[in-house]
Amino acid sequence: MVGDAPERRFEMRPIGVVRSPYAERAQVPKGPGAEHKAEGTLELRPELEPGLQDIEGFSHLFVLWVFDRAEGFELVARVPLDEETPHGVFASRSPRRPNPIGLTVVELLRREGPRLHVRGVDMLDGTPILDVKPYLSGVAPEALRRGWVAEAEERRKAKS
Amino acid sequence: MVGDAPERRFEMRPIGVVRSPYAERAQVPKGPGAEHKAEGTLELRPELEPGLQDIEGFSHLFVLWVFDRAEGFELVARVPLDEETPHGVFASRSPRRPNPIGLTVVELLRREGPRLHVRGVDMLDGTPILDVKPYLSGVAPEALRRGWVAEAEERRKAKS
Repeated sequence: MVGDAPERRFEMRPIGVVRSPYAERAQVPKGPGAEHKAEGTLELRPELEPGLQDIEGFSHLFVLWVFDRAEGFELVARVPLDEETPHGVFASRSPRRPNPIGLTVVELLRREGPRLHVRGVDMLDGTPILDVKPYLSGVAPEALRRGWVAEAEERRKAKS
Repeated sequence: MVGDAPERRFEMRPIGVVRSPYAERAQVPKGPGAEHKAEGTLELRPELEPGLQDIEGFSHLFVLWVFDRAEGFELVARVPLDEETPHGVFASRSPRRPNPIGLTVVELLRREGPRLHVRGVDMLDGTPILDVKPYLSGVAPEALRRGWVAEAEERRKAKS
């Protein structure tokens, strides 16, 4: 690898916290068929409220957050969707990542000052938020290949 | 805001760097109609290669990276797509964010050891990468509202 980027460190300070109905990991729907319809709140630090100007016009947002209750990382691991075969951490959504950043798409229901009421949270209550971005476009489903995830879902369906 | 999350700090170490045709910001297509078809490489630190196991099965990936050449942040700013009206930083993709994290969806072309050849880079050459995740699903276009971005695009069209 060229360049010194890997030797650098970047310090991140949360812009706020997630308020969610989930107090612990076991409560978050996971694995095959998991649907995230839970409502929650993104509570920003009050001084950052001006950064939300015009956000009400977007139906969906990307939320970047910290898996703050994950310890260390595993490069190859088993995950709930496919307990038989381990997969690489970058080919999965495992919380035990070299940089423990989570990414969730939520639906914006309404804003109340520095608070965004959203649907689709899969984070624990108190999760630190690093960033919020507007969701502008997605990949067309017909262009998408979903590798081992699609295969694991098929195997599950065949068994049930 | 409840809890101490905002007082915490999280230190991130890049997992690798982006190799891209863009040496400086002015070369990256931006604003209305910008298309990102440029090919580039995600070069991971060699010791992280096992984390890529099974990634070849996915057509698209999320790349989380650092705007390492952005200085500070602005809560409200003008952006290239809409130079007349300022918008909140969390309602835009401005690089000058409280935590300068970028998010790009790329198409995975092929893997070569710890290197991922991808299409769709909009990062500068040497950009530090924080995480790579499989892209599993998107929001249906008919469910999407894109706020000021859609309005600015309409105004541009009407003018041209």
